Amino acid sequence: MSYFQKLQSLGYTLQTVPLNNGRFLLAVQTGNLVYSSGSVSRFGEEEVKGLVGTDLTVEQGYHAAQLSTLNALQAIHSLVGIDNVVRIFKVLGMVNVAPGFNNTTGVVHGCSELLLEVFGEQGQHARSAVGMVIPFNYATEVELIAEVK
Amino acid sequence: MSYFQKLQSLGYTLQTVPLNNGRFLLAVQTGNLVYSSGSVSRFGEEEVKGLVGTDLTVEQGYHAAQLSTLNALQAIHSLVGIDNVVRIFKVLGMVNVAPGFNNTTGVVHGCSELLLEVFGEQGQHARSAVGMVIPFNYATEVELIAEVK
Amino acid sequence: MSYFQKLQSLGYTLQTVPLNNGRFLLAVQTGNLVYSSGSVSRFGEEEVKGLVGTDLTVEQGYHAAQLSTLNALQAIHSLVGIDNVVRIFKVLGMVNVAPGFNNTTGVVHGCSELLLEVFGEQGQHARSAVGMVIPFNYATEVELIAEVK
Repeated sequence: MSYFQKLQSLGYTLQTVPLNNGRFLLAVQTGNLVYSSGSVSRFGEEEVKGLVGTDLTVEQGYHAAQLSTLNALQAIHSLVGIDNVVRIFKVLGMVNVAPGFNNTTGVVHGCSELLLEVFGEQGQHARSAVGMVIPFNYATEVELIAEVK
Repeated sequence: MSYFQKLQSLGYTLQTVPLNNGRFLLAVQTGNLVYSSGSVSRFGEEEVKGLVGTDLTVEQGYHAAQLSTLNALQAIHSLVGIDNVVRIFKVLGMVNVAPGFNNTTGVVHGCSELLLEVFGEQGQHARSAVGMVIPFNYATEVELIAEVK
Repeated sequence: MSYFQKLQSLGYTLQTVPLNNGRFLLAVQTGNLVYSSGSVSRFGEEEVKGLVGTDLTVEQGYHAAQLSTLNALQAIHSLVGIDNVVRIFKVLGMVNVAPGFNNTTGVVHGCSELLLEVFGEQGQHARSAVGMVIPFNYATEVELIAEVK
């Protein structure tokens, strides 16, 4: 099964979206690497906003990280086609944290587990999972770096 | 017009500065990529400090992001010469945010728009624009990755 | 003296640890580059937790940054062997900051100075040193990018 089909079997259909977001690009390629922009927790009809730890539980943050990941994968898909991805090898997982909340790894697992489910060994990645302020109160933001064909 | 001249026409003259800042380098090259260090909002005689959202408006933060970008471009210039840049393709835009402020994209537009003005298509980049704590209360910090000749 | 021996002479013995941390890898290689995961302030028997600026002094944060660096080097060692490192050229230094604390550079010097001591010129790096929320209240987290043979 292709990665595109694997994502469809999970209920997620990647669209081809315009890469130029006005002031920046959703993804860029240099050599055989593709960098996604930081992708907020919004995919399809759904978005998750709020501070994890007060407005949102870890479970809701986990789901937000899934949406961020799908958003970033859609950017990569729109640039090169998701089935031209060789590996996703690096994740920067950023969480919109409430004061005192620090289970950022539990949130970013939503990204990591989705990558492993879709890409298998080719989704094994190094990562950081940290808390900061995400634009417009989105719950999470994810940057991916991929090797492509 | 060269990139150096284009910057001059906008009123910004890049200097050649020492790359070794004591404990780290302002920019490094690996292969055909140059990574700038995180560059705070200080360029020439000017610097911008404060928390965006209380001490500073979005407009002042936008200007700070311009200074950070010039600071980072000066580091790249000092390493390889700005006219040896092929593209600036990745931005990490970091904003010194006051509690509750999350229009970090509005601030980092100051970086993105300057890159587009100077480099045109070769300044189109992926980016993240997030809030955190910047050293010594500088308003912004920008990391760039460039392809060079 | 090899890098492994140099670290031993400073009292630090890198172990070979499993790279697969369940949901992510401690380090990954693409081409001749190795990216470590964000590595918290934990090495050997020792760990440092707390907010720098209230729970911890800058000096304690500096030490935490040394532990984070050793943790990241151990990840790189476990992937490729530390003596196959050509250079460590990029650092992202992240500090678990108390409200109002912004001497993040003073903390991340603990990373930079250790890299210079161990790797000499081959440890000269670009870096950012910023404050955010580190998982589980660890004091620091460090990401390294290395060139390897």
